Amino acid sequence: MATPRIQHANQVVSSEAVAEGLTAATPLPSTLARTVITNVRPQVDGGRRPAKTTVGDELRVEADVFINGHDLIRCEIRFRHENDVKWSNSPMTDLGNDHWCATLPVEQLGRYRFMIRSCVDVYATWRRDLMKRIDAGQDVSEEYLVGAQILHDVARRAKAADRHWMSELVEHLRSDALSLDNAVSDIVTKETKGRTLREALSSARIAHLTGLGDPELCTSSDTYFVTSDPSRARFSSWYEMFPRSAAPTPLRHGTFDDVIARLDYIEAMGFDILYLPPIHPIGWTGRKGRNGSTTYEGDDPGSPWAIGSAEGGHTAIHPQLGTLEDFRRLVGEAKDHGLDVAIDLAFQASPDHPWVQEHPDWFYHLPNGTIRYAENPPKRYEDIYPLYFEGLDWRALWHELLEVVQFWIAQGVTVFRVDNPHTKPFSFWEWLIASVKAEHPETIFLSEAFTRPRVMEHLAKIGFTQSYTYFTWRTSKWDIETYMNELTRSPVADYFRPNFWPNTPDILSDELQRGGRAGFLSRFVLAATLSSNYGIYGPPFELQEHLPRTIGSEEYLLSEKYELRSWDLKSSRSLSAFIAVVNTIRREHPSLQFNDALTFHPVDNDQIIAYSKSRGSEENLDVVLVVVSLDHDFAQAGWISLDTSALGIGPGDSFVVHDLLTDARYTWSGSQNFVKLDPEGVPCHIFCVETTERTQVS
Amino acid sequence: MATPRIQHANQVVSSEAVAEGLTAATPLPSTLARTVITNVRPQVDGGRRPAKTTVGDELRVEADVFINGHDLIRCEIRFRHENDVKWSNSPMTDLGNDHWCATLPVEQLGRYRFMIRSCVDVYATWRRDLMKRIDAGQDVSEEYLVGAQILHDVARRAKAADRHWMSELVEHLRSDALSLDNAVSDIVTKETKGRTLREALSSARIAHLTGLGDPELCTSSDTYFVTSDPSRARFSSWYEMFPRSAAPTPLRHGTFDDVIARLDYIEAMGFDILYLPPIHPIGWTGRKGRNGSTTYEGDDPGSPWAIGSAEGGHTAIHPQLGTLEDFRRLVGEAKDHGLDVAIDLAFQASPDHPWVQEHPDWFYHLPNGTIRYAENPPKRYEDIYPLYFEGLDWRALWHELLEVVQFWIAQGVTVFRVDNPHTKPFSFWEWLIASVKAEHPETIFLSEAFTRPRVMEHLAKIGFTQSYTYFTWRTSKWDIETYMNELTRSPVADYFRPNFWPNTPDILSDELQRGGRAGFLSRFVLAATLSSNYGIYGPPFELQEHLPRTIGSEEYLLSEKYELRSWDLKSSRSLSAFIAVVNTIRREHPSLQFNDALTFHPVDNDQIIAYSKSRGSEENLDVVLVVVSLDHDFAQAGWISLDTSALGIGPGDSFVVHDLLTDARYTWSGSQNFVKLDPEGVPCHIFCVETTERTQVS
Repeated sequence: MATPRIQHANQVVSSEAVAEGLTAATPLPSTLARTVITNVRPQVDGGRRPAKTTVGDELRVEADVFINGHDLIRCEIRFRHENDVKWSNSPMTDLGNDHWCATLPVEQLGRYRFMIRSCVDVYATWRRDLMKRIDAGQDVSEEYLVGAQILHDVARRAKAADRHWMSELVEHLRSDALSLDNAVSDIVTKETKGRTLREALSSARIAHLTGLGDPELCTSSDTYFVTSDPSRARFSSWYEMFPRSAAPTPLRHGTFDDVIARLDYIEAMGFDILYLPPIHPIGWTGRKGRNGSTTYEGDDPGSPWAIGSAEGGHTAIHPQLGTLEDFRRLVGEAKDHGLDVAIDLAFQASPDHPWVQEHPDWFYHLPNGTIRYAENPPKRYEDIYPLYFEGLDWRALWHELLEVVQFWIAQGVTVFRVDNPHTKPFSFWEWLIASVKAEHPETIFLSEAFTRPRVMEHLAKIGFTQSYTYFTWRTSKWDIETYMNELTRSPVADYFRPNFWPNTPDILSDELQRGGRAGFLSRFVLAATLSSNYGIYGPPFELQEHLPRTIGSEEYLLSEKYELRSWDLKSSRSLSAFIAVVNTIRREHPSLQFNDALTFHPVDNDQIIAYSKSRGSEENLDVVLVVVSLDHDFAQAGWISLDTSALGIGPGDSFVVHDLLTDARYTWSGSQNFVKLDPEGVPCHIFCVETTERTQVS
Repeated sequence: MATPRIQHANQVVSSEAVAEGLTAATPLPSTLARTVITNVRPQVDGGRRPAKTTVGDELRVEADVFINGHDLIRCEIRFRHENDVKWSNSPMTDLGNDHWCATLPVEQLGRYRFMIRSCVDVYATWRRDLMKRIDAGQDVSEEYLVGAQILHDVARRAKAADRHWMSELVEHLRSDALSLDNAVSDIVTKETKGRTLREALSSARIAHLTGLGDPELCTSSDTYFVTSDPSRARFSSWYEMFPRSAAPTPLRHGTFDDVIARLDYIEAMGFDILYLPPIHPIGWTGRKGRNGSTTYEGDDPGSPWAIGSAEGGHTAIHPQLGTLEDFRRLVGEAKDHGLDVAIDLAFQASPDHPWVQEHPDWFYHLPNGTIRYAENPPKRYEDIYPLYFEGLDWRALWHELLEVVQFWIAQGVTVFRVDNPHTKPFSFWEWLIASVKAEHPETIFLSEAFTRPRVMEHLAKIGFTQSYTYFTWRTSKWDIETYMNELTRSPVADYFRPNFWPNTPDILSDELQRGGRAGFLSRFVLAATLSSNYGIYGPPFELQEHLPRTIGSEEYLLSEKYELRSWDLKSSRSLSAFIAVVNTIRREHPSLQFNDALTFHPVDNDQIIAYSKSRGSEENLDVVLVVVSLDHDFAQAGWISLDTSALGIGPGDSFVVHDLLTDARYTWSGSQNFVKLDPEGVPCHIFCVETTERTQVS
């Protein structure tokens, strides 16, 4: 077959057409490539920004790939890590209805690129049609010659080693065509000969060689990006605490050594990231007093977010906490406890910060020469100056902030919780995170933005690894289901990793203020099982601190933001044992370490929510079913209508649900099953779903 | 306020950083523009291909536009017709949650471009904050000076005519600031002064001038395209007929003059496009006989799709139909009847087509020198050769086909039904349609592709104006609702205009074979009210032809594709009067001329489907509610649960449903209403929904 080729620009236009002015102004296409590639997933903002994955996972890539007419096509994915020079190729699988997919192994941190290539498979199309013709008893002698020509063309592009056997096959086809022609009336002979050729023609070697056909006639997609993060970016349990309240004796200012002494306690609860609010010197000018008062008493320590004093700024240590050496020791000891220390990046300054004198251009000056305080008019935060990210000296400021991050990386910190990123320019974060991750792809940045949805999403698109969410305020069944369906599906799930917090130093939610112990337990289980990343602010969480500063406020009474607190960790109120059990369940059940296979199961009682997550292959499937009461005052019961397929069981099968919190086992059958939850006991089930073939050991 | 500016490339890097190798490899951003524009709609394939609209409509453009922090932003849409040099600007409206929209008037045929531009509104942000400060009783003297500086900066960019009054306002602010400063303890004075300034500061002139702020700090979206078609592209009623069967006397070959004589009949039924299967000379080699037989009798006319004989090809007229002059006369007479004549573009050739001799390279030759027939192995169509769109002489072939289209445009044809476009290369159609529409944006191309969904969608993306669909095979309520929800919503609705056909010469559906009169009526009403574009193949449709060639076949018995037929248009079986009523309803009710406001209303009986369409402003709303029985054998009744908001009525209101088919009126109330439909009568209602405020005259 003569392969069509793009000829040079000598367009053929008939003279009549020119005479009548009927020529087309629209240029002819530059290629006759016939396949089309669309709807490539994952893609973020049309491929402008990377999707996210984690090391050790498989990245599933999908696309619609098709051709006009009925020809068969080939489709491959090409991918490479940004540090690699060569692309790897892997065939894609046709899922039907022109939808193709491939899964890529993610083995390195950093950034991957991928693209899709497709082409008509001339040989496979010919072979398919030949077999249909043979089966219909048609004369195929001409078709053999067509096939010989196709293989002949392929052989010219093949390696020398392959050319020999391909030429033999071409000759085989040519001579068979001749003999078939001679025996044109003998259908039986033709069919026999046809069948003997089938195997030769099905050779995997040919399929491989002819795979993507003539490269000139291939279609290539755009190139898309994926950021590969450490697995802790996907699965993490955060514990936030104020080091200054870590002293075992009341009123003494806590130190890094006190935090080291508390690592056993935190490890025992099963956390893996220890997040410390700012550890830098705290300013005096405008310092806030207890309960956020605008005046302070002599020994009020001030807010750690009012960073900077004569003792230093963002790269200094608050002297009462210890030294940089002490901090490094804390980071090392924490690692030995399986804990990463996360610090807070709060890019703002106390009026006493050294930058105020050294770099006045990094702040916004009013016409009278004073610096504008942080404010949300008419509210003012007189202990804080915002940085002026668009001032005349913005380049120096941005570089300084990058150096701050690099400084802490040099001390062993790889996890950063970023304070209010939505009040700084997007382009700053995009540049900062890209700069850091180019050298340190292992870093994790958690975006603390409680703002409008599009802004929170955009911060994730431009580089933040994890993101705070609205979880704290999603309390009804409808709210939770709707929100989770948004967060766990494409497109949001392609780039946004939620991190669920039942409380923070800024947010003592209404649920915790009024829900009592049942409220704490159910909000904790929801956070830890709905989202693979979650965190609590302790010890207030495990000790069930629930008094607000004033009625209707989400601020804690006697907040650690403004004073030292002393905590009785051995209190009988402590939920630390429960927390430890749940974190153990999270570690033992891979299904809870991902968010993508979340399914809600209807319950005929709006006060009970039920959902499952699953992970693994059919033979080795981990399925966890969680049932939580949203009523913290009264017992609630109801019938769950299980989506049994999501649980990996047949519609009418019996199975065992093993409550991993209480170790109780119940035998259930089919989809309709009864549950009852009492706030006096444990208002939740975390069931492992066991079948006879698939019994979980836990 | 000092406006930040992009400085030249002298990046500030501290010497320590260089020493430690900590400089960022990632370049600083080239602009400090702070707003972000995403999710622009409509966009097709990321803006690579145009969305569709029609002249006289308004195009609604939406996008997510936002900024970090709390500053106010401005957002405008810029658009222009491709023939215009200048862009028009129009402000976009903030719909909340960072979502913005604008509606553009579509006044010309052809192609429009649009883009979105956004910027922080420094002045409006300052003014908003100032008012909050004044309301809180704060000292605002410094803020006046800040505002003066902002206006001063704006004035520098303003026209000379505006500069004077702006400078006055700047002075006003400066002197007020001074007097406020002097009266710093007198809160009342400050507030009074503040309030007197409000009006001056709210001046629309300032808002206009400061609108998009510093152009250097604006964000621009990509440019997107929209094709503007004639309104008939959106709202059309097609009637297909074979001219050769148009003779009033049996056995005589019909002519264009016979078609002219039938125009009154077609106009009376209310159609506006008259589509003729190919009108060219028909080949003799391989000609098909009656009922598609592979041998023909002496007077069998052959399939009109086997185009070309010694008498000519794609630009010739089949002599028995008349002359080119006769055809031109038909086109003119049809126009006088409000009808556009559509012809068939079937790009294939009979073995007798002149191109076979003149341009052998336009066909695919087997090794033995013969041309390959059209086939779908093992099936062969021996009366047809396909064209070889990728052969060595493809450029000349493509230009010839373009000239074919241009030839018929010169005869007055602007509507083309394209036969099997999915068997030709996508790039061919994209080039051909773009070439034609560059000169003739009024042309309409209907894609006759019954193939895989992605291929049908792609043909619409690359230029086809309307598309055949799976409607014929969507018969259950679930099927119809699911399919319509796909077709009438973004993204498909942005570029794909469905055209619903209850029958075609190739498809006598099972519903029509077995549904009797009720089947014909309900399928007709579904097609004509679900889709603003629809068509029938007559006279077989209105005469209820329902016998298939064989049981289980969708081919007509005694199909006009292979023989002349004679039709008794005055038969008592004829549905022409009913068709006329429905087409009149379509013309009188704008809601049926669009697909975008389609709502399905649940019915507690799966054999009854109910849906509404609405159009117009609140005061002048046209609402049509259609109820159709899907059971052609037995009466069906049920309760409709109306979505009253979709009907523009209050939840418990009474209203009148006026059946436009029977002129009956029923008073309904609230959402639950009873319907009963009997196949013996009219198995459908087409209700106009009337309220006391809004009574339709019809």
